[in-house]
Amino acid sequence: MASALYDPTPFYATAQPQETKDFCMQQTMVRVKDPETSLKFYIETLGFKLLMYHDFPQWGFSVYFVAHGLKGPVPADEDKRWDFCMRTPGCIELTWNHGSEKSDGAVYNTGNGDATGTQDGQAVKGGFGHLGITVPDVRGGVQNNMPRDSLIDFVPQVYEACERFKKLGCTMTKTPNGGGMKGLAFIADPDGYLIEILPQGPMITKPLDCDGVAAEGGEAYKDNSKA
Amino acid sequence: MASALYDPTPFYATAQPQETKDFCMQQTMVRVKDPETSLKFYIETLGFKLLMYHDFPQWGFSVYFVAHGLKGPVPADEDKRWDFCMRTPGCIELTWNHGSEKSDGAVYNTGNGDATGTQDGQAVKGGFGHLGITVPDVRGGVQNNMPRDSLIDFVPQVYEACERFKKLGCTMTKTPNGGGMKGLAFIADPDGYLIEILPQGPMITKPLDCDGVAAEGGEAYKDNSKA
Repeated sequence: MASALYDPTPFYATAQPQETKDFCMQQTMVRVKDPETSLKFYIETLGFKLLMYHDFPQWGFSVYFVAHGLKGPVPADEDKRWDFCMRTPGCIELTWNHGSEKSDGAVYNTGNGDATGTQDGQAVKGGFGHLGITVPDVRGGVQNNMPRDSLIDFVPQVYEACERFKKLGCTMTKTPNGGGMKGLAFIADPDGYLIEILPQGPMITKPLDCDGVAAEGGEAYKDNSKA
Repeated sequence: MASALYDPTPFYATAQPQETKDFCMQQTMVRVKDPETSLKFYIETLGFKLLMYHDFPQWGFSVYFVAHGLKGPVPADEDKRWDFCMRTPGCIELTWNHGSEKSDGAVYNTGNGDATGTQDGQAVKGGFGHLGITVPDVRGGVQNNMPRDSLIDFVPQVYEACERFKKLGCTMTKTPNGGGMKGLAFIADPDGYLIEILPQGPMITKPLDCDGVAAEGGEAYKDNSKA
């Protein structure tokens, strides 16, 4: 039996508690096997900037913060760089446990229905799903709040982004026209974490995607939490 | 034998590829057992705003987007709300698979050394670590880029935030003076996902934290990736 849907609309009116003013959802931390491989992927492929890194040799790990949409250049001074990073929303904190790069194969369970990192080799009911990157969707300038019926010269850039990812050799787990949700894609990072690629505006499709999959038809919806 | 440290500094100079201009690290998706419980926690305790939700009854799930630091009011129009959300960095996408709220106990593996959601009950080598929220750290106005040696009237607000979390009945897995890293804390969300609480500026300690733990001494550093 289907559950009744839950209506969260009363929360739209909830005032932010004064004590939480200026709280910032600053980081999502994931562990990576090899920092060089991961930084190349996040910076060169996904367009993140390196904001800050710190080594903790006494505890055997290092952290690397990357982000999009910086509010200015990364300060050269180390203290100022730290402060700048800690005020930047939506950073990814890539954590390298020293020595993991010497392991064979995948090291970490990446959430969803992954079996990596288990003792019995069986899929885990993983809570972590993915990181999601939104990409611009209209050529010729940003049209924030443009009415939907006046979209002119519209380019669903998810498709262009995916053409590029494919050329760069990315592992694509869902192309824009694959699966039941059209117009968004999933690629895997070097450790296997899923990265969703979706538009900054309406979900509009192109007839064919980078894998030649047609928007009409395609596979059924796939729940990533299942193995 | 310790690994050599990896030097990522050349990446500071990497120019963002033109094709990734305006990419936005918009979301971290985690599955939650009960949307009402989770929304109450993220909105009322952690100060997030509800930006947008969407039900997918045909696929048996719903998603709820919450964020800090909005660039204006949440639009009332549904299309504009979607666009607004997709341009907001650092959202958390809480995903509810309909029916999960009827399960007993924890449903999802939360990363780190969690054993939830496995078939053998053994801890998983989880890649997902935590979400991290930075909190203001100085009373009397923001002092972005203030030199460290001129910090006046400084209040390490992590300690105040944690006093409040404790009063609200949050599960605290590390108080600011607990463990080897002083001045930051970890609390657990309703599903057990770790939330790091850390300052927007320098890591400064208070002599006693909300649990009465002294900054001097305390336990050793604990690696959350170990069970």
